[in-house]
Amino acid sequence: MTNLSDVFEDVGLLGFDVFGTVVDWRTGVARACAPFLRTHRIDADPLAFADAWRAQYQPSMEEIRSGRRGWVKLDILTLENLNRVLAQHGVEPTDIPFTLLEDLNRCWERLDPWPDAVPALLRLKARFPVAPISNGHIAGMLRLARHGRLPWDVILGAELAHAYKPQRGVYLASCEAAGLAPTEVCMVAAHNDDLAAARALGLRTIFVRRPLEHGPQQTTDLAADHDWDVVAENLLDVAEALGC
Amino acid sequence: MTNLSDVFEDVGLLGFDVFGTVVDWRTGVARACAPFLRTHRIDADPLAFADAWRAQYQPSMEEIRSGRRGWVKLDILTLENLNRVLAQHGVEPTDIPFTLLEDLNRCWERLDPWPDAVPALLRLKARFPVAPISNGHIAGMLRLARHGRLPWDVILGAELAHAYKPQRGVYLASCEAAGLAPTEVCMVAAHNDDLAAARALGLRTIFVRRPLEHGPQQTTDLAADHDWDVVAENLLDVAEALGC
Repeated sequence: MTNLSDVFEDVGLLGFDVFGTVVDWRTGVARACAPFLRTHRIDADPLAFADAWRAQYQPSMEEIRSGRRGWVKLDILTLENLNRVLAQHGVEPTDIPFTLLEDLNRCWERLDPWPDAVPALLRLKARFPVAPISNGHIAGMLRLARHGRLPWDVILGAELAHAYKPQRGVYLASCEAAGLAPTEVCMVAAHNDDLAAARALGLRTIFVRRPLEHGPQQTTDLAADHDWDVVAENLLDVAEALGC
Repeated sequence: MTNLSDVFEDVGLLGFDVFGTVVDWRTGVARACAPFLRTHRIDADPLAFADAWRAQYQPSMEEIRSGRRGWVKLDILTLENLNRVLAQHGVEPTDIPFTLLEDLNRCWERLDPWPDAVPALLRLKARFPVAPISNGHIAGMLRLARHGRLPWDVILGAELAHAYKPQRGVYLASCEAAGLAPTEVCMVAAHNDDLAAARALGLRTIFVRRPLEHGPQQTTDLAADHDWDVVAENLLDVAEALGC
């Protein structure tokens, strides 16, 4: 690590990946799915169902990244993906009232932050503006912040660019909206590919280890795979590293 | 006034006009102009200079509203307007280093909130998400919030629509980004025309009296000119009216 105060001298905003980095989607989605699966007699473990739902996430965004489909907000994709996962479990989408599917889909906006997230964001916010740079849409990020008391200064991310990370437009539109050059923004994420895309554009990078994001069997992103500007065990560790 | 709890039952976000309603632009701009005018030996009263600068605001946005000019962010307009006002005072723009003009222009992002604004926003925020729906751009609103500790949940407004209030796109894009129908959003403003445009689209409306926005000689917006859902003396009065 080089001298951190030099690296962060010019940083005017910390941009956060949210799903996995700030909030624990797996536990939250499974918690919401459990009563739904019982009610509709779907034979599936809630955590496995959450994983199956999440497994559709990248492929559904890839349709848009590739240009095969125009941009839509993330809640449209997660709702479509829910229908796909239900079909995998032998459930006809029309067997379940649409409003119940919509309601379950909202669980992505009621996820709890990792325990370190809010206290760390409050410390970091004393020095840096903090913002999600997520693939979540603005309304979803707003509801998630209200649910978990995430003290964002502004909501940036995919909706500003009508693109999905790691497409460069998301990072660039976020910097532009904040009135900052890419070198003045630091991306904070638990995913190496997110940081690689950010660094390629000049952003500063902080890796946060979230070895339980995908549960105890997680195999990806267990460690930093590049020399990111900071590598941290959690967000309080980030605050510590930045002297906040 | 009808029963307020009925009117606000379905409201999911309070959207605020900012310049004049939440922050006191006249005193803040004059304060920043005073040393600038002295240094450059410009013979003008700082408050009068602030008024002259502000007088260019609507005409400059009107160029964009009319379609004669493409949308640009507000700080571009205020910088151009500064040059116009300097010319009115016999100053050649090129007589003053550009960086000094840019720095002075940033005074629009360092304005103090009215004394009631922050305590009221904190009370309102306990029940409703709060957001600027301003003609200010996102970066400017972010810096203004950091300066005055305005606890916004999200920054909405003109930049989302590439339009300027009272153009309908600003209100509609703000509602859309928040995931709400217009009837679920309440506009809070010290300007009757802002509220008239919002109400025409279905938004709820709260008028806040700011009789000193334009100084002691103010003649406009001294009173509500329609039966807005709430008419208040200041933002603490709004919090009181909404039971926050």
